[in-house]
Amino acid sequence: MATERLGEFELIDAITAGLPTSPAIVLGPGDDSAVFRVEGDAAISTDAIVEGVHFRRDWSGPHDVGRKVVAAAVADLEAMGARPVTLVIAMSVPPELDQAWVLECAKGIRDECATIGIVLAGGDMTRSKEIMLTATVVGDFGGRAPVTRAGARPGDVVAVIGRLGMAAAGLAVLGRGFRSPRAVVLAFRVPEPPYGQGIVAAESGATSMIDVSDGLLADLGHIAKASGVGIDLDSSKLEVSEPQKTVAAAIGGGDPLSYILAGGDDHALVATFPSARVPEGWTVIGKVTDQGAGTVLVDSAPWTGPTGYQHFSR
Amino acid sequence: MATERLGEFELIDAITAGLPTSPAIVLGPGDDSAVFRVEGDAAISTDAIVEGVHFRRDWSGPHDVGRKVVAAAVADLEAMGARPVTLVIAMSVPPELDQAWVLECAKGIRDECATIGIVLAGGDMTRSKEIMLTATVVGDFGGRAPVTRAGARPGDVVAVIGRLGMAAAGLAVLGRGFRSPRAVVLAFRVPEPPYGQGIVAAESGATSMIDVSDGLLADLGHIAKASGVGIDLDSSKLEVSEPQKTVAAAIGGGDPLSYILAGGDDHALVATFPSARVPEGWTVIGKVTDQGAGTVLVDSAPWTGPTGYQHFSR
Repeated sequence: MATERLGEFELIDAITAGLPTSPAIVLGPGDDSAVFRVEGDAAISTDAIVEGVHFRRDWSGPHDVGRKVVAAAVADLEAMGARPVTLVIAMSVPPELDQAWVLECAKGIRDECATIGIVLAGGDMTRSKEIMLTATVVGDFGGRAPVTRAGARPGDVVAVIGRLGMAAAGLAVLGRGFRSPRAVVLAFRVPEPPYGQGIVAAESGATSMIDVSDGLLADLGHIAKASGVGIDLDSSKLEVSEPQKTVAAAIGGGDPLSYILAGGDDHALVATFPSARVPEGWTVIGKVTDQGAGTVLVDSAPWTGPTGYQHFSR
Repeated sequence: MATERLGEFELIDAITAGLPTSPAIVLGPGDDSAVFRVEGDAAISTDAIVEGVHFRRDWSGPHDVGRKVVAAAVADLEAMGARPVTLVIAMSVPPELDQAWVLECAKGIRDECATIGIVLAGGDMTRSKEIMLTATVVGDFGGRAPVTRAGARPGDVVAVIGRLGMAAAGLAVLGRGFRSPRAVVLAFRVPEPPYGQGIVAAESGATSMIDVSDGLLADLGHIAKASGVGIDLDSSKLEVSEPQKTVAAAIGGGDPLSYILAGGDDHALVATFPSARVPEGWTVIGKVTDQGAGTVLVDSAPWTGPTGYQHFSR
């Protein structure tokens, strides 16, 4: 079958054809702006992913990349306890890029949106030398207050839901030219934030919340700083998975707990709760203290391993 | 004075320090999402600008670039008749870029926001090889209906407000290594959309509207297509400025009307109105017809010069 190269507008038409809609979308793609409807206050967050920084084309397929940009952006809404409503995407690609890559990436965007129940309302497409995608997401709170980073109180417990350190383990193996264990490679390619759990946490009375994008210690550090509290993690509650142990052993005996504590990009949710209010499915991993405001300890001592995830292009 | 290189978080702090706020901003930068408030339905639009496609660092300063990305995005709200409320910016820059460039660009963003009365609520910063900025803007309608591209009716008049073809003339001289006439060079560097006039048009009963980003003929073509009407422009109403005449004469005798008809990036507003309802300050330049749905004529004939603005990097 002959493949004709599409013009910019045809490509956008191909991407937006048959987009699902929702009562929240008053006007979808095709005009100067989209028009949407929220209930009460709205949350907004923007996230860019760049080829060579957040993904590599030889490590991730276009469908993975499309899913990833949506997942990473929506995780920021989850972390406020917001309900995802709509998003817009700016896509910058080299003119010589195979259009099949663009269309498959757009399919990844749409598939991840469908999983979440968020509706793509519009976008922008431009040329660039490297592939870059920016997702801006909007959500609402249905009358609840947003859960910020600033509300943790001494006596609260710290609880987490979602994968930790899987993407970092995946990056470690990909960086050494391997493609297995498959679970960690897939985790690096596409994060799976615990969609819906941000609202569950908010309704359960979470006092603070963040998604783990930079690493558990780094992101809990943001909560500790914003809340003016200390946090003490119990390493016995941090479960290292078999694939993580395999990776740590294979690449030189590193402590697999490093992936859990310092690995980012999985977009787990970590929150603080009054101890009686931890929702089902969340794992208590530590406590909030009045000692050492702004600091995060592991088993009551400073962590001496790596802290904070570095993207692979450093 | 020694200049220390700032870390990512310090740079973000420097950019967001002392940001103005507004009653519409419930929670500004610094958490996973910002939180804002709109009245009724909301408009959203996203716009990316890329070094080498939309600007060159030797042609535009960082302050110009910051202003430009905000102006281009907000023009899309104006074109719906929306009131700009808030925006978020994703900024991708090479790690080796002088941080003074980033800070001055951020100042341009903030200055343009102040001019408009829109409040920056958050952003994202990442590395990239080329500079890219994506602005996503949100506005509301205060109970009015959005003005789309689809409402033009035969018998309406076509009217415009704002600069036409000035950026294109500026691009023409910069592309030949000149820096004057200054008016067109400045116009290329920073568009000056007619802020506030989108609401004026909406309140006056505009039946359709668009901002001129691709060129007057191309953008009116979008209205003609979406509305299923013809448009006939009266070239005697399209005023060619002295600098445009100078540029056209200097670079080989081109018809300066080409800049007006095909030049983009000025973000003028063009709208259709019932003839008695054209607001003060707008210039009637043509009429809506029931002939040749989807087509735009000039003096009742097809335009044979260039149509549609090409960015300089093609």
